[in-house]
Amino acid sequence: MTSTSTATEPLFLRACRREPVERTPIWMMRQAGRYLPAYRAVRARASFLDLCHTPELATEVTLQPIDEYGFDAAILFSDILISLPPMGLEISFPDKGPVIGNPVRDRAAIDRLVVPDPVATMPFVMEAVRQIQRGLRGRAPLIGFAGAPFTLVTYAVEGGGSKEYAHTKGLLFGDPAAAHALLEKMADTVAAYLAAQVEAGVDAVQIFDSWAGILSPADFDEYALRWARHVIARLRAHPAVVARRVPIIYFVNGCAPYLDAYASSGADVLGVDWRIDIDRVRAAVGDGVALQGNLDPGVLYAPPAEIRRRVGDILAKAGPVGHIFNLGHGVQPHADPEHVRVMVQAVRELSARPGSTGP
Amino acid sequence: MTSTSTATEPLFLRACRREPVERTPIWMMRQAGRYLPAYRAVRARASFLDLCHTPELATEVTLQPIDEYGFDAAILFSDILISLPPMGLEISFPDKGPVIGNPVRDRAAIDRLVVPDPVATMPFVMEAVRQIQRGLRGRAPLIGFAGAPFTLVTYAVEGGGSKEYAHTKGLLFGDPAAAHALLEKMADTVAAYLAAQVEAGVDAVQIFDSWAGILSPADFDEYALRWARHVIARLRAHPAVVARRVPIIYFVNGCAPYLDAYASSGADVLGVDWRIDIDRVRAAVGDGVALQGNLDPGVLYAPPAEIRRRVGDILAKAGPVGHIFNLGHGVQPHADPEHVRVMVQAVRELSARPGSTGP
Repeated sequence: MTSTSTATEPLFLRACRREPVERTPIWMMRQAGRYLPAYRAVRARASFLDLCHTPELATEVTLQPIDEYGFDAAILFSDILISLPPMGLEISFPDKGPVIGNPVRDRAAIDRLVVPDPVATMPFVMEAVRQIQRGLRGRAPLIGFAGAPFTLVTYAVEGGGSKEYAHTKGLLFGDPAAAHALLEKMADTVAAYLAAQVEAGVDAVQIFDSWAGILSPADFDEYALRWARHVIARLRAHPAVVARRVPIIYFVNGCAPYLDAYASSGADVLGVDWRIDIDRVRAAVGDGVALQGNLDPGVLYAPPAEIRRRVGDILAKAGPVGHIFNLGHGVQPHADPEHVRVMVQAVRELSARPGSTGP
Repeated sequence: MTSTSTATEPLFLRACRREPVERTPIWMMRQAGRYLPAYRAVRARASFLDLCHTPELATEVTLQPIDEYGFDAAILFSDILISLPPMGLEISFPDKGPVIGNPVRDRAAIDRLVVPDPVATMPFVMEAVRQIQRGLRGRAPLIGFAGAPFTLVTYAVEGGGSKEYAHTKGLLFGDPAAAHALLEKMADTVAAYLAAQVEAGVDAVQIFDSWAGILSPADFDEYALRWARHVIARLRAHPAVVARRVPIIYFVNGCAPYLDAYASSGADVLGVDWRIDIDRVRAAVGDGVALQGNLDPGVLYAPPAEIRRRVGDILAKAGPVGHIFNLGHGVQPHADPEHVRVMVQAVRELSARPGSTGP
């Protein structure tokens, strides 16, 4: 996956760079997940954290959707919270969602957090990257990922998921200096962690700002985008990212209110959730970035003909250049695996360029 | 509150109609709620449903924020789900959020639901409206409300709140005809229920589409806006609404992706959540409607000077005509009552028009 010859580069990487493609590439957020019977079989004998911590198991489930559907990219099996324990936060994953045992709500707790060495503290991630690349044997590029600083802060401060984000807003608005100190530690951790993933061999990275959409536009700029930019700028300057032209994807779930700012993140690719039409995003952000998205994950509950119709609609709105097809958010556990196949097939057929050699 | 003389009409009603005002009126979603010590004192001796079902208690808590802050509008104490039991749905309110014991997930269950007579089945609401109006003695107009059809469908189908809305999306996309049959029953119920509230004496109504923001723009039009419009059109034609020029407010939480469609709802006032700048909403929807919003409820955790600064920012963006100040969503239980006072005072002072007789 380290070739720099455009002709032989994978579709996914070419689309990230807005280069010509024979057809639109597709992968799916949470493609290694509970909707897949093969994944559930592994989970029957190992916990979620076991999968994250055991390179052999992470490799097995990462490869499952590649074997099953031939997606155009693989994504490292892990969790956006996996970088928090080395900072000093205790996480667990009961069935109801992640829990942080020692949430961070004041300056003293923030000051106690460390910016860890990612290779020393998360060797299992780097080893998983190497094993996955061996297992992929060039079939698809591998995406590494991390949580964005703001999104990680919401978990660290709330102690898990939240509805109202009262503690987070209390910190941001009650003590902005402390909030920025925490965001900076998160950003430094994430930047080093993603750089280590690139050094271990991932071909692209995605930064998930899953909860940036709870902010007003001014607060999005100040607390989410500013620190995502910090991570992106650090990565951009990293020798391995430069040498291998590793694309950087930034995904804000609920991006519609922030499009003007979103365009200036510095990322090569912007993720687009399903609540907004992708042609409106293109009109707002211009031609300088690729877009990734944006089928409503719930559309996988529709009959095949309707899935196909909606896939065609998104392909038409996104156009042939600089588009990576994806869901607008992670695939849901109850999605029908055969409907996923219908979606993949529809993207392949409906995006094939006349006269090209694809798919 | 039934006067038609503009000079003596309350600020809130004039702002809803885009008439001149001496200053911007303010009320607050969930202003009768847990952040108020007086409310918690009542809840210590009565359950949430007791408050909804007992006109004396509903009146007591509805008046509390009027007594405490002099808000420019009162809002009936009730719940958006209160119209579901007369349709045939069993609801309860444990501390974790509402639960519907018999969720509706197929055509047979939809066909069993009835469109109830609101006066016969919810007499406690109509009696609460009359008692509240007596208690208000003209101090502020009274807003009635209901859930929007789509939002009520999400609760009826999921059996409560949800993160992924898998059952709702399954119904919408898997059996659209059944989904519309359910939406139509909800819309007919809500239209009759709101008309009954107007006949009982409310001065304005608000339709809460709290969960319409989980839809793609095309699905918002098809499943949320279409049926909200149905309710609004029915209300518009109602003699008591016409005679008393009762303003209709439509609130979509997360409205940013749908602004073009939002403007065509038929409502007099559009609610605006905090994720989007209110001047952008004005630019998109034009001058035909009033706007209500949109301070981030989390800003009440900020110090007073910052609350004041942000209130001023919203007032400047919204302008003096056709604006009702509000939070962008309900006030949070941990908000400081003294910070609510700071917000109210800031709106009064910063929006006072030079040369007017206000506040």
